[in-house]
Amino acid sequence: MDLSQRGRTMPASPIRKLAGLADAAKARGTRVYGLNIGQPDIATPPEMLEAVRGFDETVLAYGPSAGLPETRSAMARYLTNLGTPVDPSNVLVTDGGSEAILFAMAALCDPGDEIIVFEPFYTNYAGFAHITSVRLVPITTSVENGYRPPSIDRIEAAITPRTRAILYCSPSNPTGTILRRGEVRVLVDLVKKHDLFLVADEVYREFVYDGVEHVGVLEVAADAGALERVVLVDSISKRFSACGARIGFLCSPNPSVIEACLRFGQSRLCPPTIDQYAAIAGYGVIDRYVPPMIDEYRRRRDLVMGALADIEGAVCARPEGAFYVMPRIPVDDADAFAAFMLDDFKHDGATVMLATGAGFYATPGLGRDEIRIAYVLQEDHLAIAMDLLKRGIDAYNER
Amino acid sequence: MDLSQRGRTMPASPIRKLAGLADAAKARGTRVYGLNIGQPDIATPPEMLEAVRGFDETVLAYGPSAGLPETRSAMARYLTNLGTPVDPSNVLVTDGGSEAILFAMAALCDPGDEIIVFEPFYTNYAGFAHITSVRLVPITTSVENGYRPPSIDRIEAAITPRTRAILYCSPSNPTGTILRRGEVRVLVDLVKKHDLFLVADEVYREFVYDGVEHVGVLEVAADAGALERVVLVDSISKRFSACGARIGFLCSPNPSVIEACLRFGQSRLCPPTIDQYAAIAGYGVIDRYVPPMIDEYRRRRDLVMGALADIEGAVCARPEGAFYVMPRIPVDDADAFAAFMLDDFKHDGATVMLATGAGFYATPGLGRDEIRIAYVLQEDHLAIAMDLLKRGIDAYNER
Repeated sequence: MDLSQRGRTMPASPIRKLAGLADAAKARGTRVYGLNIGQPDIATPPEMLEAVRGFDETVLAYGPSAGLPETRSAMARYLTNLGTPVDPSNVLVTDGGSEAILFAMAALCDPGDEIIVFEPFYTNYAGFAHITSVRLVPITTSVENGYRPPSIDRIEAAITPRTRAILYCSPSNPTGTILRRGEVRVLVDLVKKHDLFLVADEVYREFVYDGVEHVGVLEVAADAGALERVVLVDSISKRFSACGARIGFLCSPNPSVIEACLRFGQSRLCPPTIDQYAAIAGYGVIDRYVPPMIDEYRRRRDLVMGALADIEGAVCARPEGAFYVMPRIPVDDADAFAAFMLDDFKHDGATVMLATGAGFYATPGLGRDEIRIAYVLQEDHLAIAMDLLKRGIDAYNER
Repeated sequence: MDLSQRGRTMPASPIRKLAGLADAAKARGTRVYGLNIGQPDIATPPEMLEAVRGFDETVLAYGPSAGLPETRSAMARYLTNLGTPVDPSNVLVTDGGSEAILFAMAALCDPGDEIIVFEPFYTNYAGFAHITSVRLVPITTSVENGYRPPSIDRIEAAITPRTRAILYCSPSNPTGTILRRGEVRVLVDLVKKHDLFLVADEVYREFVYDGVEHVGVLEVAADAGALERVVLVDSISKRFSACGARIGFLCSPNPSVIEACLRFGQSRLCPPTIDQYAAIAGYGVIDRYVPPMIDEYRRRRDLVMGALADIEGAVCARPEGAFYVMPRIPVDDADAFAAFMLDDFKHDGATVMLATGAGFYATPGLGRDEIRIAYVLQEDHLAIAMDLLKRGIDAYNER
């Protein structure tokens, strides 16, 4: 009666695995501030919710497997406006960015094939690699140098005959690091040289602070004549504070990639219909909606960085983008600490829920003294949560 | 620049692969009646659409990976009302029944492991097996004996050391066959004897005609003391004519199965949020909504069976349930015929779109002279479509 090895060893999400402890703490009357999950508290554009409420068909029917034509057009127009012309036929609507990652891995890799990633990385890459029996080959980056991508030499040393792609995320979840034009170009040149694909996760494209420029993979690959090697993973979840819509997309200038992913998509029939109307409405107000949201996140980032500076022994790189920071904190075991915070700690009736570092690494043993903080709470709550974190570290180390 | 073998050889859906030809026919002004896809034209319960329109939160947020507690409760209550007590903790909400199949395969099988299926089977089983590198081992059933399941001996002969599960669908998509209590019991006893799992797809549970009883896998497994071997796949798509909601569920009395599938579910974060409120509303009106819908489908089935009886050389089993029939038709190549219908045939400015048989078989060469008809159109349209089919067969054979 054993499950498969795949089922038994599938990693739990470090972002969600403490949900049971958090529920128990709440049941005891403790207020739990969630710094663990990238669930913004910022209002979804009202136009998107109006589009949902305005759904006036009598049958909630399947759409096309590739997404509604209007959704694909809205996404292609959005990408085109960023500077590289994209045709709707090069866009597939997916069940969140999650499914775009799943499809990309399945389209590029057979079981046992390898994808190079820079760790710490978005933890769910490991989940989808596990489901598709793909091997993630991590190259470790470090907080001390701002989690910048590894050198060409280190990347080339990781390439084997089974390597199929390099996967990166910029702005990065969980580190906030943004790849510069030259850094993206290095990756593009490497995939050309070694006949690989480049999978870029640009879900946090607009979440950029301090005047750093986000450089899109399509733009750099176009300059290098390597567009056919690019798979772009994207999502409306963060851009429109609409995580529950489960609408993402995959874009590739390579028709073979799109065609294979469409066949994967046919097996699950279609992405959700009503939520696509919400997505279309969101792209209609993007220019108005996004800038004030980014200002708000920048203020939150500054607040979190100030609070981290007050925690003795914490080490962190200033995030340039996204809405996460990945500090090293002065605890022996972040998993034990995060559980302690929910089980044994409260101050003024409140505590915080954290995502622990190990799940963002593929190399065993790394990340044990790191956490990922998602600064997705309003400033007054975030200030309380950071104070709780500081007090909690003290209490944990004195216990 | 090759894709993976998985990507290159992923089968296109026989239900959706002719979409391009159909679009072209429509662009030429031809009316295309769709008999290919199980997309009902029956109105979704207005209460479900009201629930969508009533969504009054300001943030369209992630829900729990296992689904909203209220959704899980509604589904558990529904199953409990069918006769076997189910706790909400044994139910996971999925992105359609599709994802429940994907999770079941991944939880039970490692790459190269085998699942026994009776062919013809729901074509997307092959798609998800392909994505997860699982081998489907088909046992062929035949139209002549109503596509009844194979004998114990034939099933046992197909079991190997790599067999992990038997997967069946009742009422069956694509054949309409309903397994009797004794037939389900044979499968339950076999999985006990050989230490396997039994995956039952009961998406069409209510679609039962002529007084045939649908016997649920939970009921039979409970009688046999084998509940821990059961994985139940289900969906609201057909029950509530809500295919575009993409809400399904997986139920297992085995906590290990649920726990592993929850970890798979964490990687994709959550099922769509708003659509879950629609699902909850649907279960609130199920007793009122479903019976008249079933009457309507029975009339459509009778119409289709009458029309097929008028096609010389057509052979078909009378469907006992679901809303499909899988006839053998007098053509040399159903794929060529279906393409002919869209490319070269019209009558009174109209034609039909068909799903062809081969994609419902895993054994190469089978199903070449079969089609699957989904009787999901209102009766007057269905009558026209069946007349077009008859005329089309004549025209194809005379061309």
